[in-house]
Amino acid sequence: MLELRKDPVVGRWVIISTARGKRPMDFSAKKEDDPGGFCPFCPGNEDKTPKEILSYPPTAYDHATDWSLRVVPNKFPALEVEGELHRRADGIYDKMNGIGAHEVIIETPDHKQEFVDFSTQKTHDVLNAYRDRIIDLHRDNRFRYVMVFKNHGEAAGASLFHTHSQLIAMPIVPKRVTEELKGAKSYFDYKERCIFCDIVEQELDDRVRLIQETDHFLSISPYAPRFPFETWILPKSHRCFFENTTSEALHDLAGILSSTLKRIRIALDNPPYNFLIHNAPFDHKDPDSYHWHIEIMPRSTRIAGFEWGTGFNINPTPPEESAAYLRDALLD
Amino acid sequence: MLELRKDPVVGRWVIISTARGKRPMDFSAKKEDDPGGFCPFCPGNEDKTPKEILSYPPTAYDHATDWSLRVVPNKFPALEVEGELHRRADGIYDKMNGIGAHEVIIETPDHKQEFVDFSTQKTHDVLNAYRDRIIDLHRDNRFRYVMVFKNHGEAAGASLFHTHSQLIAMPIVPKRVTEELKGAKSYFDYKERCIFCDIVEQELDDRVRLIQETDHFLSISPYAPRFPFETWILPKSHRCFFENTTSEALHDLAGILSSTLKRIRIALDNPPYNFLIHNAPFDHKDPDSYHWHIEIMPRSTRIAGFEWGTGFNINPTPPEESAAYLRDALLD
Repeated sequence: MLELRKDPVVGRWVIISTARGKRPMDFSAKKEDDPGGFCPFCPGNEDKTPKEILSYPPTAYDHATDWSLRVVPNKFPALEVEGELHRRADGIYDKMNGIGAHEVIIETPDHKQEFVDFSTQKTHDVLNAYRDRIIDLHRDNRFRYVMVFKNHGEAAGASLFHTHSQLIAMPIVPKRVTEELKGAKSYFDYKERCIFCDIVEQELDDRVRLIQETDHFLSISPYAPRFPFETWILPKSHRCFFENTTSEALHDLAGILSSTLKRIRIALDNPPYNFLIHNAPFDHKDPDSYHWHIEIMPRSTRIAGFEWGTGFNINPTPPEESAAYLRDALLD
Repeated sequence: MLELRKDPVVGRWVIISTARGKRPMDFSAKKEDDPGGFCPFCPGNEDKTPKEILSYPPTAYDHATDWSLRVVPNKFPALEVEGELHRRADGIYDKMNGIGAHEVIIETPDHKQEFVDFSTQKTHDVLNAYRDRIIDLHRDNRFRYVMVFKNHGEAAGASLFHTHSQLIAMPIVPKRVTEELKGAKSYFDYKERCIFCDIVEQELDDRVRLIQETDHFLSISPYAPRFPFETWILPKSHRCFFENTTSEALHDLAGILSSTLKRIRIALDNPPYNFLIHNAPFDHKDPDSYHWHIEIMPRSTRIAGFEWGTGFNINPTPPEESAAYLRDALLD
């Protein structure tokens, strides 16, 4: 079974995917340390993954071995790329078939190197691959959203040690992003200003939650973080779509992303983490009110019943403390 | 620092509580098995907890040792019970002081007995204590919501082995409940029926996701579960407030709650779990559209980056399969 089902009360979509339950999942995680053994992401094993969608350099298509980065379909996708979208009723309930694209960005042929240790140019290449894929997937009119994310470490959901990111193109806009779009729209309607631009401005003024500032970006501990050391990276100028970032700005982003992750690695002793690009949906009609950004979530606390049931988190670390710690963790 | 801060974009409140970071927290969890040693919840150690708010039998107040159930303030509360509520601006942001009540329901003097093994009468007593506390906290006009929850097992957030539940009375309605109230209201406005009543009806008709039915309640695998073996218990008749449940119905609930947890214990080999009572807020003005219920979440999968960032879960177990398994796990 592979279908999308909607919770009738809160409107949250869920992927019900039995295929993924039958294997060590990219989502449910296995290894903290490298278990050794066979790695499908290593050079020489190109034929053990589905065929490339993209590779750098571009001459390296067709299972060539001379590559620095490959994007391949996930062998055990959460959503299926073939077929047309059908939305249906199921009594009072709503469902649709599980159409989408689920891709893996194999960031480097080097089995042992970590994302955080990449050169700025290398990180730039990875970000560029995200951009290339988003632009390409935009052409498929079945999709409304692409979520790009990285899981580092077992507790954060990485099942394979060899560093990689993932993306999922979806026929719906996920609930969390819809909430952001709505909240930002309400603010804009009232203030005629982008809430994220106001955040940028206040954080650059206050500086207590500011971690780092570059030409185009800033990293901050957000005002109401759900988790200790939750960190956001935002473009300083108003930008709605990640994929419209210029190469110059992308290079700058590579620098601040890498240095922010280094700070977190030092501060929390190499914690598991996730990062996600929060981007506007493809069909977003209101570019003035939304502002793309990256959210980084180190995994240092467990989520207990109270948090699950309420959507109301308890965080023992004030963002002013985590920001001070992260500022000092690394000399710019 | 103890304050409530609001995410300016999505409107989610977060508790920033540094006091709780300095101890083994009830939220961040330690032990799967009983570590042995000193237990503040055991008879003879009554003076190691704050003074009782409630105890059964009622004659057992004042650190008496002859009790079957005690409710005490959490020694390391997430919110503070003293003081007046102040909502303030912090530049563009919003915050308030951390006012609330955080209580622990010590369900039994028996250090080793598990909740799921209680007699129906004993479980009824625990549910009755929840009801008594909600009714009492309702009188404090600083509070708008009481969340009652139980964490079982380390991975679910239980830091003390001795079985207990918790409640937190809050000056706000938590986001997840607000979403339910809104969703249910929209449905009611359109259909003039309670969405939960419609769920009850469809599940009793279809029976594929039905686990158990009693005089007053049913337990189901919900149509779009976030997690494998997520289970809901709903009153069959429309009821907005848990605390208005009659003693007869509460006894019936004790039976189905206990047997549902037993089914889950058998099916998943004693997994960590949380359960939560989803109830209407104190000042709820629209009793026709909301329907209280219990959500039980066994912890069998890890949540990875994709889920965090999107609010969009991938569940490998269709609810029809989990319901069939749970139906067969226990002969009624």
